[in-house]
Amino acid sequence: MSRLLDDVVGELSRLPGVGRRTALRLAMHMLRMEVQDVELMAGAISRFRREIHYCSHCNNLSDRDICDICADETRDRTIVCVVEQVKDVISIENTRQYRGLYHVLGGIISPMQGIGPSDLKIDLLLDNIAQGGIKEVILALSTSVEGETTSFYLSRRLSECTGIRLTSIARGIGFGDELDYADELTIAHALHNRRPLE
Amino acid sequence: MSRLLDDVVGELSRLPGVGRRTALRLAMHMLRMEVQDVELMAGAISRFRREIHYCSHCNNLSDRDICDICADETRDRTIVCVVEQVKDVISIENTRQYRGLYHVLGGIISPMQGIGPSDLKIDLLLDNIAQGGIKEVILALSTSVEGETTSFYLSRRLSECTGIRLTSIARGIGFGDELDYADELTIAHALHNRRPLE
Repeated sequence: MSRLLDDVVGELSRLPGVGRRTALRLAMHMLRMEVQDVELMAGAISRFRREIHYCSHCNNLSDRDICDICADETRDRTIVCVVEQVKDVISIENTRQYRGLYHVLGGIISPMQGIGPSDLKIDLLLDNIAQGGIKEVILALSTSVEGETTSFYLSRRLSECTGIRLTSIARGIGFGDELDYADELTIAHALHNRRPLE
Repeated sequence: MSRLLDDVVGELSRLPGVGRRTALRLAMHMLRMEVQDVELMAGAISRFRREIHYCSHCNNLSDRDICDICADETRDRTIVCVVEQVKDVISIENTRQYRGLYHVLGGIISPMQGIGPSDLKIDLLLDNIAQGGIKEVILALSTSVEGETTSFYLSRRLSECTGIRLTSIARGIGFGDELDYADELTIAHALHNRRPLE
Protein backbone atom coordinates (compact mmCIF):
# COMPACT_ATOMS: atom_id res chain seq x y z
CA MET A 1 0.00 0.00 0.00
CA SER A 2 2.78 2.36 1.01
CA ARG A 3 6.45 1.38 0.78
CA LEU A 4 7.37 3.81 3.56
CA LEU A 5 4.78 2.24 5.87
CA ASP A 6 5.75 -1.30 4.86
CA ASP A 7 9.41 -0.52 5.55
CA VAL A 8 8.89 0.94 8.99
CA VAL A 9 6.49 -1.86 10.01
CA GLY A 10 8.92 -4.48 8.70
CA GLU A 11 11.87 -2.94 10.52
CA LEU A 12 10.04 -2.41 13.83
CA SER A 13 8.69 -5.96 13.82
CA ARG A 14 12.31 -7.24 13.93
CA LEU A 15 12.35 -6.11 17.56
CA PRO A 16 11.60 -8.74 20.22
CA GLY A 17 7.96 -8.81 21.33
CA VAL A 18 6.90 -6.57 18.43
CA GLY A 19 4.66 -8.23 15.86
CA ARG A 20 3.34 -6.56 12.71
CA ARG A 21 0.23 -5.36 14.53
CA THR A 22 2.24 -3.68 17.29
CA ALA A 23 4.68 -2.31 14.72
CA LEU A 24 1.78 -0.70 12.87
CA ARG A 25 0.51 0.81 16.13
CA LEU A 26 3.97 2.23 16.87
CA ALA A 27 4.23 3.64 13.34
CA MET A 28 0.83 5.32 13.63
CA HIS A 29 1.93 6.79 16.96
CA MET A 30 5.02 8.22 15.27
CA LEU A 31 2.77 10.03 12.80
CA ARG A 32 1.18 11.83 15.75
CA MET A 33 4.61 12.84 17.08
CA GLU A 34 6.42 15.96 15.87
CA VAL A 35 8.82 15.33 12.97
CA GLN A 36 11.80 16.54 15.01
CA ASP A 37 10.92 14.20 17.89
CA VAL A 38 10.87 11.22 15.54
CA GLU A 39 14.20 12.40 14.11
CA LEU A 40 15.59 12.53 17.65
CA MET A 41 14.43 8.95 18.23
CA ALA A 42 15.86 7.64 14.95
CA GLY A 43 19.10 9.52 15.62
CA ALA A 44 19.40 8.13 19.16
CA ILE A 45 18.91 4.57 17.86
CA SER A 46 21.47 4.97 15.12
CA ARG A 47 24.06 6.76 17.30
CA PHE A 48 23.64 4.23 20.13
CA ARG A 49 24.41 1.29 17.85
CA ARG A 50 27.29 3.01 16.06
CA GLU A 51 29.05 4.70 18.97
CA ILE A 52 28.50 2.59 22.06
CA HIS A 53 31.56 0.90 23.57
CA TYR A 54 32.00 -2.03 25.88
CA CYS A 55 34.22 -0.98 28.77
CA SER A 56 37.58 -2.66 28.22
CA HIS A 57 37.91 -3.13 31.97
CA CYS A 58 34.51 -4.48 33.05
CA ASN A 59 32.56 -5.08 29.79
CA ASN A 60 29.82 -2.66 30.87
CA LEU A 61 28.25 -0.39 28.23
CA SER A 62 30.04 2.90 27.94
CA ASP A 63 30.37 6.00 25.78
CA ARG A 64 34.16 5.68 26.06
CA ASP A 65 36.76 2.93 26.23
CA ILE A 66 36.52 2.87 30.04
CA CYS A 67 33.06 3.18 31.60
CA ASP A 68 32.13 5.91 34.08
CA ILE A 69 32.06 3.45 36.98
CA CYS A 70 35.53 2.03 36.31
CA ALA A 71 36.83 5.57 35.71
CA ASP A 72 35.33 6.86 38.97
CA GLU A 73 38.28 7.18 41.40
CA THR A 74 35.96 7.36 44.42
CA ARG A 75 34.68 3.80 43.91
CA ASP A 76 36.03 0.94 46.00
CA ARG A 77 38.40 -0.88 43.63
CA THR A 78 38.87 -3.82 46.02
CA ILE A 79 35.38 -5.24 45.40
CA VAL A 80 34.00 -6.56 42.09
CA CYS A 81 30.38 -7.54 41.63
CA VAL A 82 29.94 -10.08 38.82
CA VAL A 83 26.63 -9.77 36.94
CA GLU A 84 25.14 -11.31 33.85
CA GLN A 85 23.93 -8.25 31.96
CA VAL A 86 24.14 -4.47 31.75
CA LYS A 87 20.63 -4.18 33.16
CA ASP A 88 21.82 -5.88 36.36
CA VAL A 89 24.39 -3.09 36.78
CA ILE A 90 21.56 -0.57 36.42
CA SER A 91 19.43 -2.43 39.00
CA ILE A 92 22.24 -2.50 41.55
CA GLU A 93 23.27 1.12 40.84
CA ASN A 94 19.67 2.18 41.45
CA THR A 95 19.96 0.97 45.06
CA ARG A 96 22.83 3.46 45.64
CA GLN A 97 24.16 0.97 48.18
CA TYR A 98 27.10 -0.43 46.28
CA ARG A 99 30.32 1.52 45.77
CA GLY A 100 32.57 -1.17 44.32
CA LEU A 101 33.21 -2.06 40.67
CA TYR A 102 31.28 -4.43 38.38
CA HIS A 103 32.11 -7.12 35.93
CA VAL A 104 29.54 -7.83 33.19
CA LEU A 105 29.80 -11.41 31.91
CA GLY A 106 27.59 -10.63 28.93
CA GLY A 107 25.53 -13.77 29.42
CA ILE A 108 25.27 -16.95 31.38
CA ILE A 109 26.45 -20.51 30.75
CA SER A 110 23.58 -22.22 28.94
CA PRO A 111 24.26 -25.49 27.09
CA MET A 112 20.68 -25.37 25.80
CA GLN A 113 21.39 -22.08 24.02
CA GLY A 114 24.92 -23.13 23.10
CA ILE A 115 26.55 -20.57 25.39
CA GLY A 116 29.72 -21.92 27.00
CA PRO A 117 32.26 -20.30 29.33
CA SER A 118 34.35 -19.12 26.37
CA ASP A 119 31.42 -16.99 25.18
CA LEU A 120 31.49 -14.99 28.42
CA LYS A 121 33.99 -12.35 29.54
CA ILE A 122 35.55 -14.61 32.16
CA ASP A 123 39.19 -14.28 31.06
CA LEU A 124 38.90 -10.50 31.37
CA LEU A 125 37.73 -10.94 34.97
CA LEU A 126 40.66 -13.26 35.76
CA ASP A 127 43.05 -10.78 34.11
CA ASN A 128 41.68 -7.97 36.26
CA ILE A 129 42.09 -10.09 39.39
CA ALA A 130 45.66 -11.03 38.34
CA GLN A 131 46.50 -7.31 38.24
CA GLY A 132 46.05 -7.36 42.03
CA GLY A 133 44.13 -5.10 44.38
CA ILE A 134 40.83 -7.01 44.31
CA LYS A 135 39.94 -8.50 47.71
CA GLU A 136 36.35 -9.63 47.21
CA VAL A 137 34.35 -10.96 44.27
CA ILE A 138 30.57 -10.92 44.72
CA LEU A 139 28.58 -13.20 42.43
CA ALA A 140 25.19 -11.65 41.65
CA LEU A 141 23.83 -14.08 39.07
CA SER A 142 20.29 -15.29 38.68
CA THR A 143 19.07 -18.33 40.63
CA SER A 144 18.17 -20.30 37.51
CA VAL A 145 19.92 -23.57 36.69
CA GLU A 146 22.09 -21.62 34.25
CA GLY A 147 22.89 -19.04 36.92
CA GLU A 148 23.87 -21.70 39.44
CA THR A 149 25.99 -23.46 36.81
CA THR A 150 27.76 -20.22 36.01
CA SER A 151 28.30 -19.45 39.71
CA PHE A 152 29.73 -22.94 40.23
CA TYR A 153 32.02 -22.62 37.22
CA LEU A 154 33.24 -19.19 38.33
CA SER A 155 33.82 -20.36 41.90
CA ARG A 156 36.04 -23.16 40.57
CA ARG A 157 38.01 -20.81 38.31
CA LEU A 158 38.36 -18.20 41.05
CA SER A 159 39.43 -20.72 43.67
CA GLU A 160 42.84 -20.66 41.94
CA CYS A 161 43.18 -16.97 42.81
CA THR A 162 44.65 -16.64 46.29
CA GLY A 163 43.66 -13.90 48.70
CA ILE A 164 40.21 -13.38 47.13
CA ARG A 165 37.09 -13.63 49.23
CA LEU A 166 34.31 -15.08 47.06
CA THR A 167 30.75 -14.26 48.09
CA SER A 168 27.27 -14.48 46.62
CA ILE A 169 24.34 -12.13 47.09
CA ALA A 170 21.89 -13.36 49.74
CA ARG A 171 18.95 -15.50 48.67
CA GLY A 172 15.80 -15.24 50.75
CA ILE A 173 12.28 -13.84 50.90
CA GLY A 174 12.14 -10.42 49.25
CA PHE A 175 10.73 -7.40 51.08
CA GLY A 176 7.01 -7.20 50.42
CA ASP A 177 6.83 -10.86 49.39
CA GLU A 178 4.32 -13.15 51.03
CA LEU A 179 5.71 -16.34 52.54
CA ASP A 180 2.94 -18.46 51.04
CA TYR A 181 3.75 -17.21 47.54
CA ALA A 182 7.45 -18.07 47.82
CA ASP A 183 8.62 -21.41 46.39
CA GLU A 184 9.94 -24.20 48.61
CA LEU A 185 13.56 -23.76 47.56
CA THR A 186 13.55 -20.08 48.47
CA ILE A 187 11.88 -20.73 51.83
CA ALA A 188 14.27 -23.61 52.59
CA HIS A 189 17.23 -21.39 51.64
CA ALA A 190 15.92 -18.50 53.72
CA LEU A 191 15.44 -20.81 56.75
CA HIS A 192 18.87 -22.37 56.36
CA ASN A 193 20.54 -18.96 56.10
CA ARG A 194 18.59 -17.42 59.01
CA ARG A 195 20.36 -14.58 60.82
CA PRO A 196 20.34 -13.43 64.43
CA LEU A 197 17.99 -10.46 64.96
CA GLU A 198 20.00 -7.27 65.31
CA MET B 1 26.01 5.56 33.12
CA SER B 2 26.12 6.02 29.37
CA ARG B 3 24.57 9.01 27.63
CA LEU B 4 24.05 7.02 24.43
CA LEU B 5 22.15 4.33 26.33
CA ASP B 6 20.16 6.88 28.33
CA ASP B 7 19.19 8.67 25.12
CA VAL B 8 17.97 5.59 23.28
CA VAL B 9 16.07 4.30 26.33
CA GLY B 10 14.49 7.73 26.85
CA GLU B 11 13.47 8.02 23.22
CA LEU B 12 12.10 4.47 22.90
CA SER B 13 10.08 4.81 26.10
CA ARG B 14 8.10 7.64 24.44
CA LEU B 15 6.40 4.94 22.38
CA PRO B 16 3.03 3.65 23.60
CA GLY B 17 3.28 0.50 25.71
CA VAL B 18 7.05 0.84 26.03
CA GLY B 19 8.31 1.55 29.54
CA ARG B 20 11.95 2.07 30.51
CA ARG B 21 12.42 -1.64 31.16
CA THR B 22 11.11 -2.63 27.72
CA ALA B 23 13.09 0.20 26.13
CA LEU B 24 16.28 -1.16 27.72
CA ARG B 25 15.45 -4.64 26.43
CA LEU B 26 14.92 -3.26 22.91
CA ALA B 27 18.19 -1.33 23.12
CA MET B 28 20.11 -4.42 24.21
CA HIS B 29 18.55 -6.32 21.33
CA MET B 30 19.77 -3.64 18.93
CA LEU B 31 23.32 -4.24 20.17
CA ARG B 32 22.99 -7.84 19.02
CA MET B 33 21.80 -6.71 15.59
CA GLU B 34 24.24 -5.80 12.81
CA VAL B 35 25.08 -2.09 12.63
CA GLN B 36 23.68 -1.80 9.11
CA ASP B 37 20.40 -3.43 10.17
CA VAL B 38 19.97 -0.89 12.97
CA GLU B 39 20.80 1.88 10.50
CA LEU B 40 18.09 0.50 8.18
CA MET B 41 15.61 0.59 11.06
CA ALA B 42 16.51 4.13 12.12
CA GLY B 43 16.42 5.24 8.48
CA ALA B 44 13.00 3.66 7.89
CA ILE B 45 11.59 5.43 10.96
CA SER B 46 12.98 8.80 9.98
CA ARG B 47 12.00 8.50 6.30
CA PHE B 48 8.48 7.29 7.16
CA ARG B 49 7.79 10.32 9.36
CA ARG B 50 9.36 12.82 6.95
CA GLU B 51 8.05 11.55 3.63
CA ILE B 52 4.67 9.90 4.23
CA HIS B 53 1.65 11.60 2.69
CA TYR B 54 -2.04 11.43 3.39
CA CYS B 55 -3.89 10.67 0.17
CA SER B 56 -5.62 13.89 -0.86
CA HIS B 57 -8.55 11.83 -2.16
CA CYS B 58 -9.23 9.32 0.63
CA ASN B 59 -6.92 10.33 3.54
CA ASN B 60 -5.19 6.94 3.47
CA LEU B 61 -1.42 6.80 4.05
CA SER B 62 0.52 7.03 0.83
CA ASP B 63 3.99 7.57 -0.56
CA ARG B 64 2.52 10.04 -3.03
CA ASP B 65 -0.22 12.66 -3.12
CA ILE B 66 -2.74 10.04 -4.30
CA CYS B 67 -2.57 6.58 -2.71
CA ASP B 68 -2.09 3.38 -4.72
CA ILE B 69 -5.69 2.32 -4.15
CA CYS B 70 -7.22 5.59 -5.40
CA ALA B 71 -4.74 5.61 -8.29
CA ASP B 72 -5.60 2.03 -9.29
CA GLU B 73 -7.83 2.32 -12.37
CA THR B 74 -9.06 -1.26 -12.01
CA ARG B 75 -10.83 -0.57 -8.69
CA ASP B 76 -14.57 0.02 -8.57
CA ARG B 77 -14.90 3.78 -8.14
CA THR B 78 -18.65 3.57 -7.49
CA ILE B 79 -18.24 2.13 -3.98
CA VAL B 80 -16.56 3.82 -1.01
CA CYS B 81 -15.90 2.01 2.26
CA VAL B 82 -15.65 4.44 5.19
CA VAL B 83 -13.24 3.33 7.93
CA GLU B 84 -11.82 4.87 11.05
CA GLN B 85 -8.11 4.22 10.62
CA VAL B 86 -5.43 3.15 8.17
CA LYS B 87 -5.17 -0.25 9.85
CA ASP B 88 -8.82 -0.91 8.95
CA VAL B 89 -7.92 -0.44 5.29
CA ILE B 90 -5.14 -2.99 5.74
CA SER B 91 -7.54 -5.45 7.44
CA ILE B 92 -10.08 -5.18 4.63
CA GLU B 93 -7.41 -5.31 1.90
CA ASN B 94 -6.06 -8.51 3.45
CA THR B 95 -9.40 -10.23 2.73
CA ARG B 96 -8.86 -9.56 -1.04
CA GLN B 97 -12.65 -9.44 -1.28
CA TYR B 98 -13.19 -5.71 -1.72
CA ARG B 99 -12.41 -3.91 -4.96
CA GLY B 100 -13.92 -0.49 -4.24
CA LEU B 101 -12.29 2.62 -2.80
CA TYR B 102 -11.84 3.64 0.84
CA HIS B 103 -12.31 6.75 2.89
CA VAL B 104 -10.23 7.04 6.08
CA LEU B 105 -11.92 9.31 8.64
CA GLY B 106 -8.75 9.48 10.73
CA GLY B 107 -10.67 8.88 13.95
CA ILE B 108 -14.11 8.56 15.42
CA ILE B 109 -16.46 11.01 17.11
CA SER B 110 -15.63 10.85 20.81
CA PRO B 111 -16.84 13.66 23.07
CA MET B 112 -14.89 12.04 25.93
CA GLN B 113 -11.64 12.53 24.02
CA GLY B 114 -12.74 15.88 22.61
CA ILE B 115 -12.96 14.59 19.04
CA GLY B 116 -15.85 16.14 17.14
CA PRO B 117 -17.02 15.78 13.52
CA SER B 118 -14.82 18.69 12.44
CA ASP B 119 -11.72 16.74 13.52
CA LEU B 120 -12.54 14.00 11.02
CA LYS B 121 -12.16 14.01 7.24
CA ILE B 122 -15.92 14.16 6.65
CA ASP B 123 -16.00 17.20 4.36
CA LEU B 124 -13.51 15.47 2.04
CA LEU B 125 -15.88 12.49 1.82
CA LEU B 126 -18.83 14.77 1.00
CA ASP B 127 -16.71 16.59 -1.59
CA ASN B 128 -15.81 13.28 -3.24
CA ILE B 129 -19.48 12.27 -3.31
CA ALA B 130 -20.44 15.66 -4.74
CA GLN B 131 -18.05 15.00 -7.66
CA GLY B 132 -20.49 12.24 -8.70
CA GLY B 133 -19.94 8.63 -9.67
CA ILE B 134 -20.29 7.12 -6.18
CA LYS B 135 -23.32 4.85 -5.87
CA GLU B 136 -22.75 3.15 -2.52
CA VAL B 137 -21.13 4.18 0.75
CA ILE B 138 -20.35 1.32 3.14
CA LEU B 139 -19.85 2.28 6.77
CA ALA B 140 -17.28 -0.05 8.38
CA LEU B 141 -16.86 1.57 11.78
CA SER B 142 -16.42 -0.14 15.12
CA THR B 143 -19.47 -1.18 17.15
CA SER B 144 -18.48 0.95 20.15
CA VAL B 145 -20.70 3.81 21.32
CA GLU B 146 -18.33 6.19 19.50
CA GLY B 147 -18.56 4.08 16.34
CA GLU B 148 -22.35 4.03 16.45
CA THR B 149 -22.41 7.79 17.08
CA THR B 150 -20.15 8.37 14.11
CA SER B 151 -22.23 6.06 11.89
CA PHE B 152 -25.40 7.90 12.94
CA TYR B 153 -23.82 11.29 12.29
CA LEU B 154 -22.54 10.19 8.87
CA SER B 155 -25.87 8.66 7.91
CA ARG B 156 -27.56 12.01 8.64
CA ARG B 157 -24.99 13.98 6.66
CA LEU B 158 -25.11 11.51 3.76
CA SER B 159 -28.90 11.42 3.66
CA GLU B 160 -28.67 14.82 1.92
CA CYS B 161 -26.80 13.19 -0.95
CA THR B 162 -29.30 11.79 -3.43
CA GLY B 163 -28.75 8.61 -5.37
CA ILE B 164 -26.38 7.12 -2.77
CA ARG B 165 -27.05 3.74 -1.24
CA LEU B 166 -25.82 3.80 2.36
CA THR B 167 -24.95 0.43 3.91
CA SER B 168 -23.14 -0.89 6.94
CA ILE B 169 -20.99 -4.01 7.27
CA ALA B 170 -22.93 -6.94 8.76
CA ARG B 171 -22.88 -7.49 12.50
CA GLY B 172 -23.21 -11.05 13.74
CA ILE B 173 -21.37 -14.01 15.17
CA GLY B 174 -17.86 -14.24 13.72
CA PHE B 175 -16.61 -17.43 12.09
CA GLY B 176 -15.02 -19.63 14.74
CA ASP B 177 -16.79 -17.76 17.56
CA GLU B 178 -18.76 -19.73 20.14
CA LEU B 179 -22.35 -18.63 20.66
CA ASP B 180 -22.03 -18.78 24.44
CA TYR B 181 -19.07 -16.41 24.37
CA ALA B 182 -20.89 -13.80 22.29
CA ASP B 183 -22.56 -10.90 24.10
CA GLU B 184 -26.35 -10.45 24.17
CA LEU B 185 -26.35 -7.49 21.80
CA THR B 186 -24.42 -9.39 19.15
CA ILE B 187 -26.66 -12.47 19.47
CA ALA B 188 -29.81 -10.34 19.36
CA HIS B 189 -28.49 -8.55 16.29
CA ALA B 190 -27.51 -11.81 14.61
CA LEU B 191 -30.99 -13.26 15.28
CA HIS B 192 -32.77 -10.16 14.06
CA ASN B 193 -30.71 -10.09 10.85
CA ARG B 194 -31.06 -13.81 10.17
CA ARG B 195 -30.80 -14.85 6.54
CA PRO B 196 -32.41 -17.62 4.50
CA LEU B 197 -30.10 -20.61 4.07
CA GLU B 198 -28.68 -20.67 0.54
